[in-house]
Amino acid sequence: MVDENLNLLVPNEEYLKAGIHIGTKFKTKYMKDFIYKTRPDGLSVLNIEEIDKRIRILVKLLTRYEPSDIVVVSRRENGWKGVKKLAEMIGVKFFAGRYPPGLLTNTQLKDFVEAKILFITDPWPDRNAINDALKIGIPVIALCDTNNAANNIDYVVPCNNKGKKSLGLIFFLLTQGLMEAKGLHNKGQAFPFTVDDFTAE
Amino acid sequence: MVDENLNLLVPNEEYLKAGIHIGTKFKTKYMKDFIYKTRPDGLSVLNIEEIDKRIRILVKLLTRYEPSDIVVVSRRENGWKGVKKLAEMIGVKFFAGRYPPGLLTNTQLKDFVEAKILFITDPWPDRNAINDALKIGIPVIALCDTNNAANNIDYVVPCNNKGKKSLGLIFFLLTQGLMEAKGLHNKGQAFPFTVDDFTAE
Repeated sequence: MVDENLNLLVPNEEYLKAGIHIGTKFKTKYMKDFIYKTRPDGLSVLNIEEIDKRIRILVKLLTRYEPSDIVVVSRRENGWKGVKKLAEMIGVKFFAGRYPPGLLTNTQLKDFVEAKILFITDPWPDRNAINDALKIGIPVIALCDTNNAANNIDYVVPCNNKGKKSLGLIFFLLTQGLMEAKGLHNKGQAFPFTVDDFTAE
Repeated sequence: MVDENLNLLVPNEEYLKAGIHIGTKFKTKYMKDFIYKTRPDGLSVLNIEEIDKRIRILVKLLTRYEPSDIVVVSRRENGWKGVKKLAEMIGVKFFAGRYPPGLLTNTQLKDFVEAKILFITDPWPDRNAINDALKIGIPVIALCDTNNAANNIDYVVPCNNKGKKSLGLIFFLLTQGLMEAKGLHNKGQAFPFTVDDFTAE
């Protein structure tokens, strides 16, 4: 249980409503430590405090990079709206949809991208991007659900990386955090976007 | 086994001689995936390719920070010479010896340090530093041996974090990598230090 007085990025209720903590019935050994319990219906429940903490660290890590050196990938359609909004506000490069293998490694490709860090929505559908990142030796950050293999991932953000609401909330919090860190938004003022702006229809 | 043709930071033989891959007889669940095999005498053997890869990523992560924002901690004496040489060449802040609790959190302390990232030699002796980092929400990078609990560590560099030679080689490679990344050393030229300069007597 999350301590009610805990200082989270959004009220615990918001996390619960978005289902950010609802994993799958399948659990990999890599994700065991992030799991808080298993529900009677077999679904895993992720630890919300740890999710919150890791979204904060994610913001801090990405803040260190020039946006143009960051590549964000989401093959999964539920991530597209959030990824695109993040890119629009922060200026990161992104691939929403099929990631063309070799994009980060093959300088001959017309679309070749020089990246210093990769951020992906799911290690399985986005595995081509991971392979490219491994070849050039850049850090890989990934949203990982309970069913993901997290070997080859340098920093894991545990979460429901499948649902629209969960992905929307994550990209909302990430964009908000990066805008604050970069001075594009003042913490004291109302944030000009809602989670809906990041959430697939 | 390491592929002989693999491109490592130093020849595989150097890693073996330093015992960088020799773990303990005790294995935590956190470190299992980094273990390549168990020797007949019960000692764990870490995967050298993964160690090499993670030292490279460590360099890349630390390169993103101003040296004065990086705090390096080693309670273990075998790490002191390496930590001090790293600090001398790169300008990171460091504590070789007892870490005073509250140093990163208590602005009232005369020695208060504002850190943006923490790098420690061993999660157990350096646990006070981890607790401070957790309180202020900065990333923690740690050298972790097979007996370490790596919860609360954001980035693990698996290695023998106890032996003189192993720690010497790690701080040598880290300093070399950071000096190259910062343009303080040209890759083509002879590096002006040897591993001995980082290795406890």
